[in-house]
Amino acid sequence: MSLPKKIIISESGMRDGLQNEKTILSAEEKISLINELADAGLTDIEGGSFVRADRVPAMANSAEVFRGLDYDRGVKYYALIPNRKGLERAIEAGARLVGVGVSASAAHNLANYNRTPEESLAAYQGIIETAREHGLEIRSSIQMAFGSPWERVIPVDHLKRLVEKYKDQGVNTIIVADTAGVATPDQVYETMSGLSREFPGTQWLLHLHNTRGVAMCNLLAGMEAGVTMFAASVAGLGGCPFVPNAAGNLATEDVVHLMDEMKIETGINLDRLLETARRVERLVGHEGHSYILRAGKSCDLLSAVKRQGS
Amino acid sequence: MSLPKKIIISESGMRDGLQNEKTILSAEEKISLINELADAGLTDIEGGSFVRADRVPAMANSAEVFRGLDYDRGVKYYALIPNRKGLERAIEAGARLVGVGVSASAAHNLANYNRTPEESLAAYQGIIETAREHGLEIRSSIQMAFGSPWERVIPVDHLKRLVEKYKDQGVNTIIVADTAGVATPDQVYETMSGLSREFPGTQWLLHLHNTRGVAMCNLLAGMEAGVTMFAASVAGLGGCPFVPNAAGNLATEDVVHLMDEMKIETGINLDRLLETARRVERLVGHEGHSYILRAGKSCDLLSAVKRQGS
Repeated sequence: MSLPKKIIISESGMRDGLQNEKTILSAEEKISLINELADAGLTDIEGGSFVRADRVPAMANSAEVFRGLDYDRGVKYYALIPNRKGLERAIEAGARLVGVGVSASAAHNLANYNRTPEESLAAYQGIIETAREHGLEIRSSIQMAFGSPWERVIPVDHLKRLVEKYKDQGVNTIIVADTAGVATPDQVYETMSGLSREFPGTQWLLHLHNTRGVAMCNLLAGMEAGVTMFAASVAGLGGCPFVPNAAGNLATEDVVHLMDEMKIETGINLDRLLETARRVERLVGHEGHSYILRAGKSCDLLSAVKRQGS
Repeated sequence: MSLPKKIIISESGMRDGLQNEKTILSAEEKISLINELADAGLTDIEGGSFVRADRVPAMANSAEVFRGLDYDRGVKYYALIPNRKGLERAIEAGARLVGVGVSASAAHNLANYNRTPEESLAAYQGIIETAREHGLEIRSSIQMAFGSPWERVIPVDHLKRLVEKYKDQGVNTIIVADTAGVATPDQVYETMSGLSREFPGTQWLLHLHNTRGVAMCNLLAGMEAGVTMFAASVAGLGGCPFVPNAAGNLATEDVVHLMDEMKIETGINLDRLLETARRVERLVGHEGHSYILRAGKSCDLLSAVKRQGS
């Protein structure tokens, strides 16, 4: 197994995670959680999205959140923006890293954004230029990269055309997302190897959903293909937009635990992260999809037996 | 990724799964479920264990189960036996495939069986001979092969010594179990590659626990190391003996779904299996640790959207 020595985890619980929750957290709660996550060592955190409040009520206070963040601690706070209006609100709130997204599934893009992927990409040109003029960093995403409920198979060549457009727009960090939770490890390996060969020097960020229980396998397959940046969600918050009650993102603590066990550096203190994960579960009022929160760390198993004296 | 074209899934829900359940199924219910599992295409099924009824009440009716099985349909029904008394009961009930087990952790073996691993292995010599005299097939297991709550690290050389003893006893199918759910994919790959090199021609059966969310990764790592036989549990029944409420075995349907998606043959009809998994959940009275039972198959996602007409 050819694995990297170090990976970066991009924490997506405060955006992708919370937007699937019935309980809406206040801006103060979100800011406090984001600060705790940064204290635990996370350096890349999704702060929220500037979408329509009537469509995603959990994100209505994103401007307040971004205004309250500490930009002096070397953490990148990501804001998802769907359009120019969102960019303007993000700039006003002080965001420094914004992302636009297109779906690899044309039908999904039409259903979600009411425009074709090509129209989305054309519209982003001007938005990205404006963001740059304001000194913002850009990170673009491709949703449904591994299959969608509309088009089951997404050809890698189709992904390459979308990446090419983003690269033409000067974007170098690209989120490749398994929005529908249908990716398999062999597919992730082939896809990410193919994209990396075609676009060397690109920073890929794999955003995996654990809908069908194989997201951790997909993460490892991504690592074997050379990817070093992965989204995960504290306490395993999140869901699948097409399957009610399905598991969502990988729990950040589960990823950190496995990396710790495999001696792959994340820079994250697992014990502090687990404290935050427990607080997140208290705030949303239910258990997330986290294994380590339930089972504890492998190393604690040893001391538990020792304490019992058995 | 170097993966096999075909794997065998050993269904362990009726033994390792049910012994963690509060609801005790009747022999009729177990026999009916085992027949359904065979109908779905499973060819290797744990039927129960001949242990002390006061210690594992869920297995008290194992003799009745084994007496009621259909031995003419080409399915291997495995019975775990802890000692000579268990073997005698298994023979009397008509079992044709029995297994003994030792822990790679000396302290665990002492705690669980009240003897050292060496004493266990010595005692098995005579038991295995008796079983052979009665025409039974033997499958031996090594528990805690990847770490234990007592000894965190289990050296591969230690595993090799245990395998050597089993091979000396003429046993060729060996279950390697991550009883504590602490294995990591790199470790599984290294361990199984090492054992395969040292003991070519051995049929390994990896029994993984999903306590910390990485059992599917460990299964894939095992496949990359050449292993082609894996335990899984219908509806994701099971638990971890050291962590109350932790996830247990991988759900058989989750493994079959991934293999189907990766075009790796299992010989199992997923739709029929899912019917049985739903029945298992109804019988035990709660949801197991299954992803596909909650999320559905990837291919059904497509038709669901089409049906909605969106």
